[in-house]
Amino acid sequence: MRKISDSTVRRLSVYLRFLEQANAQGRSTISSGELARLGGTTSAQVRKDLSFFGSFGKRGLGYAVPELTRRIRDILGLERGYRVVLVGAGRMGGALVQYHGFRQRGFHITAIYDQDARKIGSRWNGLVVRDVKHLESDLKKDPSDIAIVATPAESAQQVVDRLVRSGVKAILNFAPVPLNVPPDVEVKTVNMALELETLSYSLANR
Amino acid sequence: MRKISDSTVRRLSVYLRFLEQANAQGRSTISSGELARLGGTTSAQVRKDLSFFGSFGKRGLGYAVPELTRRIRDILGLERGYRVVLVGAGRMGGALVQYHGFRQRGFHITAIYDQDARKIGSRWNGLVVRDVKHLESDLKKDPSDIAIVATPAESAQQVVDRLVRSGVKAILNFAPVPLNVPPDVEVKTVNMALELETLSYSLANR
Repeated sequence: MRKISDSTVRRLSVYLRFLEQANAQGRSTISSGELARLGGTTSAQVRKDLSFFGSFGKRGLGYAVPELTRRIRDILGLERGYRVVLVGAGRMGGALVQYHGFRQRGFHITAIYDQDARKIGSRWNGLVVRDVKHLESDLKKDPSDIAIVATPAESAQQVVDRLVRSGVKAILNFAPVPLNVPPDVEVKTVNMALELETLSYSLANR
Repeated sequence: MRKISDSTVRRLSVYLRFLEQANAQGRSTISSGELARLGGTTSAQVRKDLSFFGSFGKRGLGYAVPELTRRIRDILGLERGYRVVLVGAGRMGGALVQYHGFRQRGFHITAIYDQDARKIGSRWNGLVVRDVKHLESDLKKDPSDIAIVATPAESAQQVVDRLVRSGVKAILNFAPVPLNVPPDVEVKTVNMALELETLSYSLANR
């Protein structure tokens, strides 16, 4: 399969949301026009995005909802389910543990770590916050592919180094700092202030 | 000034972080090479990004830290400060209210709204959660340019319509749903499950 771009992957995720809604409503087909309208793009873009994976649609009939749903879930690697460890039991960590979207998509937070003695041992969403000193030994017993880092900026790189040494291959970073990882590890940084800054730029330059 | 791309704006935000650190350390100059290294890009890219705004650097001396800091803050529209209203006093809203990065950057959350009687009247970070029925009348008295929407998906579009009618021009959306707005309003959607899905894709296709 050809390597597809980050922006295509993002649109596939968006289409998947609407396909799952259509599935839940018992619908059997959906048109590129409807996916485009729901996803804020064009029919031509939808057809182009889906053509990466071979021929799905039938002209005039639209796409078969169950088949397209399954194919996109498969392409995105969502069928297998993921164990996710969370490091950082602060406010953001708390919001993330409760975030329904993760579980719906097969991302299961299976452990939470912090270094703060006041947090260690407290129960969050059925999980007990563990001392981060156990990170390496826990990951050795129960490997995880994905980690979420929601620590303060100062400790993020050190935590990431430990995760990488323990075999974690993908990291979602909420600390407001860029992270260095080896080439075989993927990092996505979500920086909320930066999102507001792009809005500020568009307000200032309208 | 030329319109600059979203990805350039994002890199400027990142450079600004390091410039502010350099400022705090009392440094007077910084090289494109150092900004590149810290920001995870190349010197050529840094020089190109900064060349959009005229000539800053002196060959061999680097950029004057205070001047470059001021210019980027000015370009991003950060000098003026923003009043931000938050709609949705759930877990995510709670994390956002406490998020230091916003205040540091001049984004001041000045009001919080919810429709849940159990939340209305509670005090969050010095602000009392108000009934969302007051949204329009409050914005009439105290206009805001920016709103953060952290409601469930089902109510997000309706909240956004009300914000737009009340003159809000920029929206940061945490609800996992695309939003329709008129062309003069900017929306950025932060979808955390989608970030995990792009990581899943890269794990599945490595």
